[in-house]
Amino acid sequence: MTDAWPDLAGRIDGKVHRLPVRVYYEDTDFSGVVYHANYLRYCERGRSDFLRLIGVSHSELHGGEDAAERRGFAVKDMEIGFIKPARIDDVLEVHTRFAGIGRARFHLGQDIYRGEEKLFGATLTAVVIDGTGRPQRLPGDMVAAFSEFLPSAD
Amino acid sequence: MTDAWPDLAGRIDGKVHRLPVRVYYEDTDFSGVVYHANYLRYCERGRSDFLRLIGVSHSELHGGEDAAERRGFAVKDMEIGFIKPARIDDVLEVHTRFAGIGRARFHLGQDIYRGEEKLFGATLTAVVIDGTGRPQRLPGDMVAAFSEFLPSAD
Amino acid sequence: MTDAWPDLAGRIDGKVHRLPVRVYYEDTDFSGVVYHANYLRYCERGRSDFLRLIGVSHSELHGGEDAAERRGFAVKDMEIGFIKPARIDDVLEVHTRFAGIGRARFHLGQDIYRGEEKLFGATLTAVVIDGTGRPQRLPGDMVAAFSEFLPSAD
Amino acid sequence: MTDAWPDLAGRIDGKVHRLPVRVYYEDTDFSGVVYHANYLRYCERGRSDFLRLIGVSHSELHGGEDAAERRGFAVKDMEIGFIKPARIDDVLEVHTRFAGIGRARFHLGQDIYRGEEKLFGATLTAVVIDGTGRPQRLPGDMVAAFSEFLPSAD
Repeated sequence: MTDAWPDLAGRIDGKVHRLPVRVYYEDTDFSGVVYHANYLRYCERGRSDFLRLIGVSHSELHGGEDAAERRGFAVKDMEIGFIKPARIDDVLEVHTRFAGIGRARFHLGQDIYRGEEKLFGATLTAVVIDGTGRPQRLPGDMVAAFSEFLPSAD
Repeated sequence: MTDAWPDLAGRIDGKVHRLPVRVYYEDTDFSGVVYHANYLRYCERGRSDFLRLIGVSHSELHGGEDAAERRGFAVKDMEIGFIKPARIDDVLEVHTRFAGIGRARFHLGQDIYRGEEKLFGATLTAVVIDGTGRPQRLPGDMVAAFSEFLPSAD
Repeated sequence: MTDAWPDLAGRIDGKVHRLPVRVYYEDTDFSGVVYHANYLRYCERGRSDFLRLIGVSHSELHGGEDAAERRGFAVKDMEIGFIKPARIDDVLEVHTRFAGIGRARFHLGQDIYRGEEKLFGATLTAVVIDGTGRPQRLPGDMVAAFSEFLPSAD
Repeated sequence: MTDAWPDLAGRIDGKVHRLPVRVYYEDTDFSGVVYHANYLRYCERGRSDFLRLIGVSHSELHGGEDAAERRGFAVKDMEIGFIKPARIDDVLEVHTRFAGIGRARFHLGQDIYRGEEKLFGATLTAVVIDGTGRPQRLPGDMVAAFSEFLPSAD
């Protein structure tokens, strides 16, 4: 079915993943704009689809029967700026970039745009955990996959 | 900690469970009222707390390591009427009643009030499933616990 | 920006609107499948995008300064069947069809598929309301737009 | 109806507001724990109820017909630490404290506990905006109400 909807997981442009997000009723609150916590949902969609396009899927990570062998991601910390509000019917774009990789964690920058306007910006640290919640070293193939998207040294 | 908040799971009055629910920002949409799907979240809170007060907790049901031994609930069908909208800051009450019990399913009626005004009404059928999603006969102790809350025959 | 994402609002195939929906973390619950109320969010996305493609946008409907002149939609009743659960990473399709139009209400059928499998089915009645919540006659251009998608009489 | 549920908006203990929050199905995701963005919903409930108990309600703030006279709150930035995960059926407590007040903004600290364990911590800046989204000076009565809850100077 993904063949029928080629853009469903967004696109990678150079080192940035771009995911379009439509603002629906469910996303807004009575003040007329997008409810602040929902930008975090948009960011998580962006992260998930970026990882999907580079070959890391949640269902595979979580698939194992043995809790010690399952792998998943958890966000450890975030810094967030809410710049301008998004509104019903808006088409937004979530931009996701790798900012750094450590032994057991990686750092992302995520910005949300409406056209040229930046509405939201966040930086975050995520870790890989096993099924019992314990942090794990990043697997070698994940480090390799992520490293291609790190900012250039120069 | 539950001792400190005695009403947190609502109360059983006769055969009806009553749970208070506050309407927050997160519950509303840009049209100014509670987003329609959120009444289903309120109903699920009511069901969970009714079951909690009569001794059935989700964490126990789901706790088993063996998927075939885990138990959970799944809603099979619902009929819903949206009567009047709820608004920010409203205090609602979710009323939950048992309407019937079968071998592998049970039927509930759930209504949401603001004071005397009924805002929402639903009837639903739920089943007990194992960890693989297969429907199960209702365990005997569950049937016994639920039966006390069935409407009187007369 | 919509030019960049041509499928964002789905497509109309004959009389059926089809919207792809990806299942993300936010959609699932601890039982491992999509939380039941979230299928209603998917349906609302389908309705919104169907209306968008035939020229009815929420922001226009709601745009007026005068509450008596604003227009919006409200769901009045729904009948829902939860058939099979959706899971993380699934690509679903929401299919929306008009089932009937009255003076002040219209009826839709909405089904959610994963490939050929039907996971969820609903029928619902929606009304047009003004900014004070009062039901309104369907505007003539809306009736004309909707009527093209009614099931054939034969 | 609030009389019937005296703890619904939590309690103020000295300078800290405490709100109990139950973890329901809707709050968790398929990884088995509370979905990360939902801690922001809990925090917003805590803020709303703290303000409610000291006499500031959203419906009053937003009530005006004239957009320039309406007032509301918007979060401008947040720093968040996710320490340990919460799980289904958990009873959490959201603790909210004022950390500072400026001319057009105020700063809060919000922590979420399960018993003695701290699961989540955040600091945030909020502003008062009018109905068009423009930041406003904090009204004098709001400054007076908030100031009682500022940390002592010594």
